[in-house]
Order: sequence, then C-alpha cells, then structure tokens
Amino acid sequence: MDQQLTIVKVGGKVLENRETLSVFLDDFTALPGAKILVHGGGRSATTMAQRLGLETRMVEGRRITDAGMLEVVTMVYGGLVNKNVVAGLQARGVNAFGVTGADFNLIKAHKRTGAEIDYGFVGDVDEVNPESLAGLVKQEIVPVVAPLTHDGSGNLLNTNADTIASSLAVSFAQSFDTSLVYCFEKPGVLINPEDDNTLIPYLNRELFDMYREEGIIAEGMVPKLENGFNSLANGVLEVVITNIEGLSIPGRGTTLGE
Amino acid sequence: MDQQLTIVKVGGKVLENRETLSVFLDDFTALPGAKILVHGGGRSATTMAQRLGLETRMVEGRRITDAGMLEVVTMVYGGLVNKNVVAGLQARGVNAFGVTGADFNLIKAHKRTGAEIDYGFVGDVDEVNPESLAGLVKQEIVPVVAPLTHDGSGNLLNTNADTIASSLAVSFAQSFDTSLVYCFEKPGVLINPEDDNTLIPYLNRELFDMYREEGIIAEGMVPKLENGFNSLANGVLEVVITNIEGLSIPGRGTTLGE
Repeated sequence: MDQQLTIVKVGGKVLENRETLSVFLDDFTALPGAKILVHGGGRSATTMAQRLGLETRMVEGRRITDAGMLEVVTMVYGGLVNKNVVAGLQARGVNAFGVTGADFNLIKAHKRTGAEIDYGFVGDVDEVNPESLAGLVKQEIVPVVAPLTHDGSGNLLNTNADTIASSLAVSFAQSFDTSLVYCFEKPGVLINPEDDNTLIPYLNRELFDMYREEGIIAEGMVPKLENGFNSLANGVLEVVITNIEGLSIPGRGTTLGE
Repeated sequence: MDQQLTIVKVGGKVLENRETLSVFLDDFTALPGAKILVHGGGRSATTMAQRLGLETRMVEGRRITDAGMLEVVTMVYGGLVNKNVVAGLQARGVNAFGVTGADFNLIKAHKRTGAEIDYGFVGDVDEVNPESLAGLVKQEIVPVVAPLTHDGSGNLLNTNADTIASSLAVSFAQSFDTSLVYCFEKPGVLINPEDDNTLIPYLNRELFDMYREEGIIAEGMVPKLENGFNSLANGVLEVVITNIEGLSIPGRGTTLGE
C-alpha cells in the first residue's frame, strides 16, 4: 500500500469569512497524514476588482479574465488568500507552503480557445508535474494550491479550483493512496439546495445522470461532480463532497462511487 | 568545499519595467549552479495602493504598513510580482517556485515595536529556517523570495528585501559556499550617485565608515551596505553590489571586503 494522501479543495465562501476560515484551518490541521489544500477565492477577487473599478463578468459560473482581471486574480488568489492561509496553517504547526501551477512547473495549461465565449486568460490543464512536490508531500509538508496555472511561455492563467484539485488528485494517485474531498458551504449534494436534510449520501454515474436529467443536479455542481467521477475513474480511491463539519467526520457528505 | 550558491537580490525598479525585467531574468537564468532570487517591489505596491485610494507614507525609505497596506503588499509582492517572476523563469527553463517567509516557516519575524515611528505591520527578522528549502536548492530548484515574513501567529509582516537577502545568505552559508549579489539600477556604490563613472570598486568597513562620515554614502545605501558587511562577518564568502550588466560579468560593481 502506498502512503495515504488527502487532497482537500475548499471554496472561496468558506475562506472569505474569518470565522469559518479559522474553523476550517483547525479541522484541516487535524486531518492525519500527508495532505494538500487547494483553494478557490472567487468572491474576494470580485470585491478587489470592484475596488479597482473593474467589472466582473461571469458566464456559467466562470469568470471572464481579461488582462486587468488576470492581475486581480494573481494578486488575490496567489497572494492575499494563499499567503494568509499559509500563515494560518503555520500558526497551527502545519508546515505549509503556497504554490500556483507556475511554481515547480506544477500545472501547465493552455489558454482556452475556440469556445463560443472568449473567457480570456483562462487555462485548460495539459499536464501536472508532481515530481518536485512529491518528496515534500511525503514528509507531510503541505502544499497550498491557488487556482492559477501557467502556459510555459511566461503567462499565468486563471483555472477552476475544482479542476485543479481533481487534476492533482489523479496525478498524485500514481504514487499515493489518494482521497479527494470537496469542502464547500453545503453538507453535500442536495436534492433541494435550500434544504440540508435532502442530502444524497451516495452517487454513482448512473444516479448522477438520472438526477441531472431530472434537473435536480444542476449548475456549478455538474462540473464539480464530473471532476469527481473523472478522478475516481483515474485512480483516486475516494471522492467526497461535504462541508466543514463533514471534513472531520468520515462518512459525512456525499460519497461518489463508480 | 560545499556546493556553491548565489543569492541575488533584485530591486523593484528593475522588475517594474518589462524590458529590464526580461533582461534581468535572462541574465539570472544564465547564472550557473544553485541560486535563490529575492525581489523587492516597492513602486508596484505604491501604484496599486494609489489605485485603491490608499495613501503611501514612507519614513527614511521604509513603508508605513497599516492593515490596508499590508493587504496591498501581500497581494503585490506575494502574488503579482512573485508569480510573474516565477512564470518568467519557468518560461526560461528554470524550475522556480515562489515563497514568502511564511512558506515553509522560512523567515519568522516580530512586529517592530518601541521605535519612535510606528511602522505598523513591519517585521524584524528573528530566525531563518532553511531546512525545507535546502534539499530543493541543492537540486538547483530556485526559490523566488518575496519580502514578507510571518510572526508564527498567523500574521504576515512587511520586511525589507535587502535584509531578507542578507538573512538568507547568512543562514544558507552554513551549508553552501554562498555569494550575495545586490542587483539594482546603478553599477554599484557611487561617489556621485549621478555619475556612473564614479564607481567604488572595493569597500571594506574602514572605507565605508570614512565615506559615510563624509556623507558620500548615504540614505538607502547605508542599510544595504550594513546588511552586506553583516553577511560577510557571518560566513558569506562574497558580497557584490551591481546592476544587471554586472550580474553576468564577474568582478563588475562594488565588492565588499572585511
């Protein structure tokens, strides 16, 4: 058996609020063994863009990233959010360090082209290079990953954090027994997003397709689950979608199966 | 003999300009062996602060860092400048990664107190922990260090980049044959700052004290040289102050001696 590794993706909403951030960092600290944290940071970028007089345009939950917005996400994701999370983990005795996909050439991507909508400086992942990180992860030094990639020609690209988490999970699954946890503000996948008591505890592809056809699973949850199923199909042992409370209690949330 | 290591500190002015940044990154890439890059980023933080409607106050070349300004320097130094330098080096085939003093608990500092002026969230260095980085540096993976430290209680602090470079040099000198190069916009220490032909090629403590008494060496150059002499006195083998041209030509610039 390989060394166990837990990759946690945490959403921007959890990080934005001082209190939930602090609870999350406590719970993440308590997770045993090797781990990687991937964070979003959506709203904090929107707030900063506003302060700079830049308009935020979203299409299907994806941010249109022109040159000015790329500067904002580089500052906010790569700097403000990432470094505060790292400092917060260090304060809890976790030897953390922050990276983007450019650092250690971790995630190479290409600028999305040919789509009907021009998303601007948005990157689709081409390759993950975990070699430089693997040794650190084995020593339980914890990478904190901001949702930015690079194209290998000096350009940073804005990349969806869920996708980054699943790309990393698939790559690290080659040398670790890897679990992937999507931690967001809901207790898991819900039949009624307004009612936490409607949690779906288990989802496989067949159930997912059914719920999707019925319109029960929609919007941002669809790509998150696609990423999850893709991870399972590519060597990741476990994928769970849950909230902060679920992070410290095994079996809570929605568990994906093949 | 230990493995050689070159630590280059580059000033904000060199990085601000697309052209000089590109030339600098080319020259830095050409340096053989293990290396570390420490960057400033002063003016870009001032520009961003202005765009956010924050007033920049400097006392003796040091930035007064209130909570709003700490956010700005965290974003600009730790995010914008750092990640663009990393992506630029990766594009040149250098396996670089960005860090602040919080990452890997690299540089712990305390908030400056008791000074006549309240500098705010400004950190004075307490300790350097090079252990996590040393293995990477030995493999010629290149840390790019932003001028931020942390206090171990979750707070980031703004710390002078020259001081960070010299603290790192002293620490790494324990296991590497370490050279420290301060690369800025002038060819070295000048008798007349307006005339590049008045370069002082060699400076020791005695000469430094003499020039300082005569007022020939003043302002920002004084702490830079203090840092340089301090490095030499603590195991660093060579300290040079030069500009981009001097980076690729050994012996150019001002060499410090004990």
